[in-house]
Amino acid sequence: MSTFYTRYRERRETIKSVLCVGLDPDPTRLPQGYQQSPEGTGQHLKEVIDATADLAVAYKPNAAFFESMGSDGWGLLKDVIQHIRNVAPQALIVLDAKRGDLGNTASHYAAAVFEELDADSVTLNPYMGKESLIPFLEREDRASFVLCLTSNSGAQDFQYHGVPPLYQRVAQLCRQWQEEFGNIGLVVGATRDPEELRTVRSIAPGMIFLVPGVGSQGGDLDQVMQNAGPDVLVNSSRSILFASHNKVDLAEKAKAEAMSLVNKMRPYLG
Amino acid sequence: MSTFYTRYRERRETIKSVLCVGLDPDPTRLPQGYQQSPEGTGQHLKEVIDATADLAVAYKPNAAFFESMGSDGWGLLKDVIQHIRNVAPQALIVLDAKRGDLGNTASHYAAAVFEELDADSVTLNPYMGKESLIPFLEREDRASFVLCLTSNSGAQDFQYHGVPPLYQRVAQLCRQWQEEFGNIGLVVGATRDPEELRTVRSIAPGMIFLVPGVGSQGGDLDQVMQNAGPDVLVNSSRSILFASHNKVDLAEKAKAEAMSLVNKMRPYLG
Repeated sequence: MSTFYTRYRERRETIKSVLCVGLDPDPTRLPQGYQQSPEGTGQHLKEVIDATADLAVAYKPNAAFFESMGSDGWGLLKDVIQHIRNVAPQALIVLDAKRGDLGNTASHYAAAVFEELDADSVTLNPYMGKESLIPFLEREDRASFVLCLTSNSGAQDFQYHGVPPLYQRVAQLCRQWQEEFGNIGLVVGATRDPEELRTVRSIAPGMIFLVPGVGSQGGDLDQVMQNAGPDVLVNSSRSILFASHNKVDLAEKAKAEAMSLVNKMRPYLG
Repeated sequence: MSTFYTRYRERRETIKSVLCVGLDPDPTRLPQGYQQSPEGTGQHLKEVIDATADLAVAYKPNAAFFESMGSDGWGLLKDVIQHIRNVAPQALIVLDAKRGDLGNTASHYAAAVFEELDADSVTLNPYMGKESLIPFLEREDRASFVLCLTSNSGAQDFQYHGVPPLYQRVAQLCRQWQEEFGNIGLVVGATRDPEELRTVRSIAPGMIFLVPGVGSQGGDLDQVMQNAGPDVLVNSSRSILFASHNKVDLAEKAKAEAMSLVNKMRPYLG
């Protein structure tokens, strides 16, 4: 079992949580009291991290939100990752970047994610196949979450194509590659039909599912835990980041929201 | 017709070329005489751009190679794009980034690509469907190239899944969305079976195909032009960037290589 899987299980066991806090910094939506700048945005994120450090199994910075700030954003992303290392050294860092490209190019993305930014894991897009994932999978001490099924309306266009539907084919092949690498997870959204989550779990038992879409996006936490079981990272971004409109009580409210989610998870964690 | 399509056709007409020069800067592979640093890498790219400014319809910086240099890389990428604007103002800039994510996140990627970096177009991954492409497609003055069929071995894993094969379904839907937006192209690799390129062309007549894989990756230029027709951007990266191992004659040899490719294209451009 890879370092990532071991660290995940130890952390889950220790803090009785499968909460992943999504970090989607949006300078235009900052609570009152923060400066609308990369510095103010960084301060906001760090206060949320501090407030949830005992409740989060993982943090998931969303690359897009940093990239739209340009070079400053990359500096901020590195800084935020370092901050997590300092205040929650056992927490796992999942860079949500949905990368996917040819082998040689993928090696450069892997270097950017695992060396330059020092994330523990990354989200990947499977369209270009196993070859495009290998430069990431070869990092034994890191992990990769492969896009399988998403909960957005656009999922209908391609993810259900063919027999079996493409998303099941992705789950099947990833399950097979997992035998070889041991450090693969799947991104499986909290879709409207809970049967789908159950189907993917039956194809890929024991693999960690990163489940976005709970909270602001409306997914139901109980249904996720019932159908996917305990090997999950349940992500919530906006409901925690923007738990208050004001800096004054942001930390308190973000912590309360995270605690409320964790309390709903615990009955399923044995 | 979008600005991008118009600019593409005018440029093709003026310089009788469909050459796209791929910019994959690799500090570890720099020709002798350049400093192994972001500055040296930038100098290398700029000399190649200067040498090919009258031959390239487009330049395609590959985001991964810049990202692996961290914040410096992002600064370099902006600088290189600005340099292209200065020395070849009619040339089109395609950022090869293979982005694809939920609507809200995709908006941030679109801001990063079109505002922060000021590229004319971008490559996108279709896995999450139309909804994930819309924030890019809504930019009427920019264009998006959607991954359809790639020439790597990993393409077998998912792109041929289902009936019709997934890559044909992607081409069909993009053709349909093109009616609405007018600024979509497809990424179609120079695969071993030339019949495939012909099939995609029959599904998507008139759409610009970005065709990587010619040159170092072994694709045959004549077959591409015969099967895809003139509405293409044929990309070559390494054969031009590393046309010489020494700075002394790099510009001359890069230009000769580009000229040789353009001479092979011209018989097909009428």
